[in-house]
Amino acid sequence: MRSTTALLAGAPGAALSPTTIERRDLRPDDVAVRVTHCGVCFTDLHHLRSTDPGVFPLVPGHEFVGEVAAVGAAVTRFAVGDPVAVGNIVGSCGACRWCREGQENWCERFVLTYGGPDHEGGRTLGGYSGEYVVRERFTHHRPAHLDPAGVAPLLCAGITVWEPLRTAGVGPGSRVGVVGIGGLGHLAVRLAAALGAEVTAFTTSERKVADAERLGASRVVVSSDAAAMAAVGDSLDLVVDTVAVDHDLAPYLAALDVEGVLYPVGYLGPLQVDSMSLLRGRKRVSSSGSGGVDRTAELLQFCGEHGVVADVEVLPARDVATALDRLARNDVRYRFVLDTADL
Amino acid sequence: MRSTTALLAGAPGAALSPTTIERRDLRPDDVAVRVTHCGVCFTDLHHLRSTDPGVFPLVPGHEFVGEVAAVGAAVTRFAVGDPVAVGNIVGSCGACRWCREGQENWCERFVLTYGGPDHEGGRTLGGYSGEYVVRERFTHHRPAHLDPAGVAPLLCAGITVWEPLRTAGVGPGSRVGVVGIGGLGHLAVRLAAALGAEVTAFTTSERKVADAERLGASRVVVSSDAAAMAAVGDSLDLVVDTVAVDHDLAPYLAALDVEGVLYPVGYLGPLQVDSMSLLRGRKRVSSSGSGGVDRTAELLQFCGEHGVVADVEVLPARDVATALDRLARNDVRYRFVLDTADL
Repeated sequence: MRSTTALLAGAPGAALSPTTIERRDLRPDDVAVRVTHCGVCFTDLHHLRSTDPGVFPLVPGHEFVGEVAAVGAAVTRFAVGDPVAVGNIVGSCGACRWCREGQENWCERFVLTYGGPDHEGGRTLGGYSGEYVVRERFTHHRPAHLDPAGVAPLLCAGITVWEPLRTAGVGPGSRVGVVGIGGLGHLAVRLAAALGAEVTAFTTSERKVADAERLGASRVVVSSDAAAMAAVGDSLDLVVDTVAVDHDLAPYLAALDVEGVLYPVGYLGPLQVDSMSLLRGRKRVSSSGSGGVDRTAELLQFCGEHGVVADVEVLPARDVATALDRLARNDVRYRFVLDTADL
Repeated sequence: MRSTTALLAGAPGAALSPTTIERRDLRPDDVAVRVTHCGVCFTDLHHLRSTDPGVFPLVPGHEFVGEVAAVGAAVTRFAVGDPVAVGNIVGSCGACRWCREGQENWCERFVLTYGGPDHEGGRTLGGYSGEYVVRERFTHHRPAHLDPAGVAPLLCAGITVWEPLRTAGVGPGSRVGVVGIGGLGHLAVRLAAALGAEVTAFTTSERKVADAERLGASRVVVSSDAAAMAAVGDSLDLVVDTVAVDHDLAPYLAALDVEGVLYPVGYLGPLQVDSMSLLRGRKRVSSSGSGGVDRTAELLQFCGEHGVVADVEVLPARDVATALDRLARNDVRYRFVLDTADL
């Protein structure tokens, strides 16, 4: 087994403490990644607060980057020293319809990067750690010219918003709305703009208007401004709604043009939708999760070509408590990334 | 003014009684229709039970057929004696985006065929009557070779299911689900099959299986059969859900293939949707109402070419109470139509 230091919590509410953990010996198709940066996702906070059985001991972290430290005998796509990235899944059955169609994230036997059962009867420990061992198939080449800290959030926040943008075929002339300018939303604005779309950003905060414009929005609407909201009516092809809490979807359905699609990707609980908000305009509500292997690779290539990274605040890994506290208060522009050099 | 006899209720719960009402004198663009048959829609029952202000006096009926009795001076598309049909709207502003795009049913100033304000300060009285005066624009040519009683329900039940079928571009190779084999559902099966689709019908009733097959379904699933429901999983391009009461949408979302669309068109209240039912497969929930003028005309032409009519039980208009009582108990195959010869 391989030893590394990880930030581990033993029980709900316990602090994340540097702890020695074991990674498996490399299988033929395994890559050992020396983790350099790991993004802090709202999901991490959610898991740390969980009272579900089997969650602890917990090492969070499912958007990380680093370099290849070692490779298994059958690995062909990577060599030691290669810049790489890993997202929120690290395994799947490889045989079902979804795996064959490149949607490994829908496979019934997918393996979460942390907190989930693996195929060997254990549970995965995440990227808040010095090293991670991952199958080659779920390891991604990372554009070396991009700031690695800014790349890490692409692997969860980025792919989550990339999925609806690509599903909708967003490109020049597309009219895209983005609700919420946070970890996911700021990337949605930047990616949609890089794809050539005309982006309307919706925010509750006057203070984010200038930032949304800087990120690439051609129009920013403060959602409490009823007149501005009405002016958007029936004009957008899709809306990517990144708000992480339950909220009224009607204003964003009203913003859609005929047969436009609203993608709530931030809040994944039960959605309440008024039929009448859908009927007039045959509007649609959908959702999407993260992406499969191919689409994640596509995103990283696109970001390399267009120079897209996340706006991040980098903290030493041992300051994780500060990152989590501030994230819980929405006090981050726009994603915390842990620098794991101190692990 | 023009006099006619209509079935009118004066107050909530009151019986519909033959009553003399006035129709307006013909304006230049008006057509007087001698009503021969009017379908009985669940909406009629809903209005008769309404306690909303301004609903009464009420003459229901918004899917009717007949012949032209007289035309205004500027009418060009119709002559006396022409077979015609009228649906659930009889007016709109004619100038807004929706009117220009053929979606008069979304116009903010649309005029309902009954129970709604007209543009002159009155309220409309519906098609349970001997005559109706309607603008030429909202009057449709009716294929004369089709049974007129079977045509009447096309104007509400039919167009309501035609709208999602056409939105989805249903044709040969399309995989269409229809939930509920009733007034709307039986027409959805028949129309989808006539369009060339492979139709899966979902019913709660074993007794309707043979009928659904007769209507054109290639597969009929009794929704309480968990194994049969599971076998449909992830396989349909769209599902037209005609169930008129609130119900769990998850089984029908599960039946959709990737990016498939569920159209609840029977129940138009608030919809509760689990994000996870949408996420895996990026499935969509939409809705649609009736159709605009052009699409209604298209439906009538299609039905003429394909010999599609509703399965109806025809009753004399004065037996309307029987029709309403049985409709309230779902005891109809599949639409009551009033023959207004006795009015």
